[in-house]
Amino acid sequence: MKVIFDTDPGIDDAMALLYLSKLPEIELLGITTVVGNADLETTTRNALFLRQQFGMTAPVVRGAGKTLDGVDKAEPVIVHGLNGLGEIDIPAVDETGLLAGEASQFIIDTLKAHPGEVTIIAVGRMTNLALALRAAPEVAKLAKQVIIMGGAFGYQGRSGNMTPAAEANIHGDPVAADEIFAAEWSVVVVGLDVTHDIILDTDYLATLSREVGENGELLRQMCDHYARFYKEIMGLSGVVGHDLLAVTYALYPEWFETRRGPILVQRDGIGVGQTIQMPETRKGGHPAWAGRPSQTICIGVAAEKVLEHFRATVAR
Amino acid sequence: MKVIFDTDPGIDDAMALLYLSKLPEIELLGITTVVGNADLETTTRNALFLRQQFGMTAPVVRGAGKTLDGVDKAEPVIVHGLNGLGEIDIPAVDETGLLAGEASQFIIDTLKAHPGEVTIIAVGRMTNLALALRAAPEVAKLAKQVIIMGGAFGYQGRSGNMTPAAEANIHGDPVAADEIFAAEWSVVVVGLDVTHDIILDTDYLATLSREVGENGELLRQMCDHYARFYKEIMGLSGVVGHDLLAVTYALYPEWFETRRGPILVQRDGIGVGQTIQMPETRKGGHPAWAGRPSQTICIGVAAEKVLEHFRATVAR
Repeated sequence: MKVIFDTDPGIDDAMALLYLSKLPEIELLGITTVVGNADLETTTRNALFLRQQFGMTAPVVRGAGKTLDGVDKAEPVIVHGLNGLGEIDIPAVDETGLLAGEASQFIIDTLKAHPGEVTIIAVGRMTNLALALRAAPEVAKLAKQVIIMGGAFGYQGRSGNMTPAAEANIHGDPVAADEIFAAEWSVVVVGLDVTHDIILDTDYLATLSREVGENGELLRQMCDHYARFYKEIMGLSGVVGHDLLAVTYALYPEWFETRRGPILVQRDGIGVGQTIQMPETRKGGHPAWAGRPSQTICIGVAAEKVLEHFRATVAR
Repeated sequence: MKVIFDTDPGIDDAMALLYLSKLPEIELLGITTVVGNADLETTTRNALFLRQQFGMTAPVVRGAGKTLDGVDKAEPVIVHGLNGLGEIDIPAVDETGLLAGEASQFIIDTLKAHPGEVTIIAVGRMTNLALALRAAPEVAKLAKQVIIMGGAFGYQGRSGNMTPAAEANIHGDPVAADEIFAAEWSVVVVGLDVTHDIILDTDYLATLSREVGENGELLRQMCDHYARFYKEIMGLSGVVGHDLLAVTYALYPEWFETRRGPILVQRDGIGVGQTIQMPETRKGGHPAWAGRPSQTICIGVAAEKVLEHFRATVAR
């Protein structure tokens, strides 16, 4: 399975990268970066560091530093820390792994080079994907599928994390997200409705540190910071492995319960960034949603299987 | 328990009125009407008809024919029919039961006459309540509680019926709803998250017709029409007893699972009319919600108990 991983590392992005580094089923073609969990220079630096740390060979390609409406603001540092990786020590990184060029063009070129073969796993703001679609709308039909971490549809009360209405990746660039849901490719949405079932608690992180060695200990250290956000803001015990779950979907879609239907993103007002799907079971339809392709959202997940698979995989 | 019932009959409003007519625990002080399931003249006529048909003594008081922003449009007739009661034959109604005056003033006067004693059960658009608050904000503190049928928070995928985002009563006057959630009274929201568990199927309606007699048969006939909407638009088998569930809550709050937190209504954009709660468990808060009182939403219900209680009550 050929994959482009679009990311803004980010602590849960680091989990997903370690996961990807241990999956022979996945041929990683590139790691594209975007502003989000930190600014673009930081997320790109972190991608290069993690690539090197995890012994990955796929190139890193720098992407969008601003959202489609020109904003360059990253998320509050309380979530991922000033350095985007929970204030762990990050050594100087050489830029050997950095490919010249820009992420949206890399996405276009890669989809054209392997028509029908490439899965995009996008776990940050959707800006790079939207820029690719704007520049070359025809590439939508060339993607095998697009799996995104983002959004929240209210299942089990999981309505939002950036606001009570909106999840951070969609809230960070609602226009970009709205455009990727409108495109004629197959999008699977791994949102808070399922990611909040993937809780890495203290015991689990201690097990990673023991079984996985250096990189497991690195994740555990990052999560010390991350856990503070989840405890103080979200009232949770443990950290949420959002981004790793998008990788799991690529391998084991059968572990997920899903719902189909077109999706719109609220572009303004107090609900800005909220994802709203019209389920296909709603037979009467609604004009605002009617012109869009059906996409897939995840509404349930076999969380135990995911946590066990992640642990066993990164321990290889 | 002293109750004002604010309503736009409406087929499920008729169910709720029959229910109220058989509950000695409830002292019904007034039936206030509003545009919604049909225009105001129709909903007021229907309230008078149902009052007479069900042998009720509480007066009917005519309320708002337009929403706060001046719109007088009722819901599409596919839902409740041209006459608001599923095209059953409605005899000429005398206006003996109609009290002079206007609903919002009646609400104000009644709350002032019985401070701390009156429960408002509002199952239409929130226009009358919002007009009462605008004219006399101090009455909020005089209400015992306000139980509304309206809204949808996404639990079990119940995102909306008027649009994929919004429930009809809130969508019909989003500004009014937003204002009643902001007021310093105790609001309980009985929305689609729970009402869609109250399915009256063909067998159930046949039982009502058999056990309840004339009024049960009347409900069954109305539901013939209502069922078409649920089948053709919502893809459901049977009809949903939205409004009766707000009455059940007044009697048996312990049959409901709830979530607390301030609520905002999306006022524009594709999500207009969407209700968004910030759960109290979200410790970090959010500035847009922070100034509002916590309200209660229903997120689960013992549906079997409700259906059995409704059947047994109306069969008395």
